[in-house]
Amino acid sequence: MISEKIKSQIGGEMVIRAMFEKGIKMKQEFGADNVFDFSLGNPNVPAPDAVRDSIVDIITNTAPQKVHSYMPNAGFPEVRKAVADHLNSRYGTGYTPDNIIMTAGAGSAINLVLKSILDAGDEVICLAPYFAEYKGYIQNYYADVVEVGPMDDGSFYPDCEKLAAAITPKTKAVMVDTPNNPTGVVYPEPVIKEIAAVLKAKEQEFGTVIYLISDEPYREIVYIEHEGELPWLPDYYDDTVVTYSYSKALSLPGERIGEVIVPDAADGSKELIGAITTCNLLTGTVNAPSLMQLVLARCLDEKADVGFYRKNAELLYEIVTEAGFEALKPQGAFYLWMKAPDGDDNAFTDMAAKHKILVVPGSAFAGPGYVRLSFCVAHDMIERSRQAFMDLGAEYK
Amino acid sequence: MISEKIKSQIGGEMVIRAMFEKGIKMKQEFGADNVFDFSLGNPNVPAPDAVRDSIVDIITNTAPQKVHSYMPNAGFPEVRKAVADHLNSRYGTGYTPDNIIMTAGAGSAINLVLKSILDAGDEVICLAPYFAEYKGYIQNYYADVVEVGPMDDGSFYPDCEKLAAAITPKTKAVMVDTPNNPTGVVYPEPVIKEIAAVLKAKEQEFGTVIYLISDEPYREIVYIEHEGELPWLPDYYDDTVVTYSYSKALSLPGERIGEVIVPDAADGSKELIGAITTCNLLTGTVNAPSLMQLVLARCLDEKADVGFYRKNAELLYEIVTEAGFEALKPQGAFYLWMKAPDGDDNAFTDMAAKHKILVVPGSAFAGPGYVRLSFCVAHDMIERSRQAFMDLGAEYK
Repeated sequence: MISEKIKSQIGGEMVIRAMFEKGIKMKQEFGADNVFDFSLGNPNVPAPDAVRDSIVDIITNTAPQKVHSYMPNAGFPEVRKAVADHLNSRYGTGYTPDNIIMTAGAGSAINLVLKSILDAGDEVICLAPYFAEYKGYIQNYYADVVEVGPMDDGSFYPDCEKLAAAITPKTKAVMVDTPNNPTGVVYPEPVIKEIAAVLKAKEQEFGTVIYLISDEPYREIVYIEHEGELPWLPDYYDDTVVTYSYSKALSLPGERIGEVIVPDAADGSKELIGAITTCNLLTGTVNAPSLMQLVLARCLDEKADVGFYRKNAELLYEIVTEAGFEALKPQGAFYLWMKAPDGDDNAFTDMAAKHKILVVPGSAFAGPGYVRLSFCVAHDMIERSRQAFMDLGAEYK
Repeated sequence: MISEKIKSQIGGEMVIRAMFEKGIKMKQEFGADNVFDFSLGNPNVPAPDAVRDSIVDIITNTAPQKVHSYMPNAGFPEVRKAVADHLNSRYGTGYTPDNIIMTAGAGSAINLVLKSILDAGDEVICLAPYFAEYKGYIQNYYADVVEVGPMDDGSFYPDCEKLAAAITPKTKAVMVDTPNNPTGVVYPEPVIKEIAAVLKAKEQEFGTVIYLISDEPYREIVYIEHEGELPWLPDYYDDTVVTYSYSKALSLPGERIGEVIVPDAADGSKELIGAITTCNLLTGTVNAPSLMQLVLARCLDEKADVGFYRKNAELLYEIVTEAGFEALKPQGAFYLWMKAPDGDDNAFTDMAAKHKILVVPGSAFAGPGYVRLSFCVAHDMIERSRQAFMDLGAEYK
C-alpha cells in the first residue's frame, strides 16, 4: 500500500532509526545508566529563561486571536523585521522583512527551497560527509543527489577540484553546512572563497544559476578561536540562500522554528521568495508556529550555552584519544568524528555497542571509515564512559 | 530559476491570493470598516482560556528540556494516548497511541498521508466542490487529481454513480471533508454509506486498496440537529484515514497542530503508520510543535464556540436571501455557498467587489456558478454589510 518511492526513501532512514531502537532496547536490558548513548543530536541544555518569560508575557498580555492566528505565510512581518535587524547588526547586511521567510525549523526551510527550485532529474551536490537527511530532502522532489568527497588530508574540508568536476548544467544547488554535521569541522574563510570561486566559474561556463544552500543550525556553536562573527556566506557568493534553525541556538528542537534568508543579490530572489512562501502553503505546513515566532523575536540576543558543549567536547576528545582512537578535535556543532581503527565503521559500531557505547556509523553520512559521536549529552555520562572506551580501544591493540 | 513544476502549481494558488491582496488594497483605499471581507477562513473566536492556562502551567512547571525537546516523530506518547482515549470515549473505538500521529496541522497531515501512498501517475479523487489546496497537495507527489461533481439536485452531496465511474485501478485515495469547505454541507449517514459501498465494490473489482481520506477540520462546527456525534467514517469503511486539525476547534490555526488517525482495520495500517511517521522526518517538519502537543492534550474536552458561528450563519443567510440571492443554508463549517445569479461566478465576484463585498469565486473550488462566503468574521461586519448586499442584489433584478 506504501508508495514505491517512499519505500526506497525509508531505506535510507533505517540506519539511524535502527540505532535509536537498539539504544532503547539496550537501556531496558542494562539500565539507562549503563549505556553510553552518543547517537542522538537532541540538545541537552535547557532553553534560556527568556524563552519561558517571553511565553508567559505574550500569552498573558496579547490577545489570543493575534498569538495563535494565521498570518502571512512568510511569517509575522514584525518577527521577520526583528530577524532582519538582528542579522544586519551582526553581519552589516541590509536585509528587510521581505528577505526572511519563517519556517517550521531548518529541515522544513531546506525542503521549501529545494521544492521551489527542483524539477525531476535535476542535480544537487552534497559535500560528503553530510547530514543524512539531505538525501531524502532532495529525493522528495525527484532530483538526484551527487556526492563530492572531502580533501584527503584529513581536514574534511571539501575537495574543490572534485566539486568543480561534479557540476553539470543540471546542477541546481550545492548544500553546505558549517559548522558541520557529522564532522564538527568549521570551514575557514579560504575554503569558503574557493567554493564561491568554483560556483561562479561554473555558473558562467554553463550559463546557469547554482544556489549555495548554507544550512546553519550550528551557527552559534563554535569552539575554535575566531574574531567577530564567522564568515557570512552571502558575502562571498551572491546566489547563497541561508537556512537556519533555533533548535540548537535556543534549545527549541521540538518547536520547529527556523527561517530561510534569501538576499536580494541572489538571482531571481523575488521569484524565489514568492515560491518558497507559496510552498509553505502547498506542503500544508502553511506557516511557522505562531507563538514561537513571537517568542524568538524577543530572544534573538540570547546565547546558546556553548560552554556546556565545549566542556563535553574537551572531555570526550580527551577520553577517546587516551583510549587510542584517532579523532578530529571538534571545532563546532556537537559532534566528534572518530576513525574506525580498522576502517570498517559498521563493524566498529557493532563492537562499540558490545561495550555499551552507541555511535552512528559514518556510512550513514557518506563518510565511511569513521563514526559520529554526538556529545549533547550529560557531562556525567561522558565521564562514566571512560572505562568503556578504554576497553573498546583495547580490542584494537 | 523556479522549478517548472512549482510554476504550474503556483498558478492554482493565485485566485485566493489575488483576492487577499485585493482586500488589503481596498481596505487601504476605503477604510477597513467599509469593506466587507468574506474571503478568508481565519477563525475569529479567541482560543479557550484553558489554552492560555495550560501554556502557563506547562511552561512554569515542566522542565524546558521536556517541553521543547524532540520526541518520537509521531509525537509524545502521552499526548497520542490522550487523543486516542478522547476518540474512544466519543466514538466507542479502541484506538491506542499507535493509531495516532501528531502533525503540523491537517494540511501537513494530508500531505504526509498522500506522500506515503502516492507514486507518480497515481490518481486521487476529489469530490467537487472541494478545498482548493487538495489539488496542490496531490500534485506535490506527481499524482493526478480526478474531480467528481455533486448531485444535480442542489444538495451538493457527491454523485456516487459518477464516483464509481471515475475510479480506476490507479485510484489510490478519495478525499472527503464533511462538514464541507466550501459548501457548508454536512453529509448525512446514507451518503456516507453510499460512498463506502462504492469504494468497497471498486476495491473488490480491481483488487486494489482505496483509502478514504476523511479531512475533518470542521468536525466540531455543526449547525444542523443531530443526536450524539456525527457519523465516524472509519465505522463505515475500513480503509479510512482521518486527518484532523485543532485550528478551528481550539482557534489555533497559526500554531499548526493536528493529527492523522490510522485505525488498525485500515489495510496495511502498520506500514502506513510507519511511512507517515518517516515522512514527518523526510519533509523536514519532523514532528508537530512540542509545546502545543502538550497543551492540546489538556484541552481535548474544550468546545469550539459554535454559537458564535451559528449566529453569523443565520444573519448572513437572512441577509443574502433577503437581497434576493439563492444560497445553501450552512449546515456546518463556516462557509455560505451562494449562487451567482447569472451563473458566472468570476463576473459576480467582480460585481460584489464593486459593492465592497469580498467573496471567493466557486471556480477556485471546482464549483463554478457559485461563490463562497466565509462568515468567521465579526458579527457586526455582517450586520453592516446588509445594504451592500441589497445594492448588489439590485444589480441583478
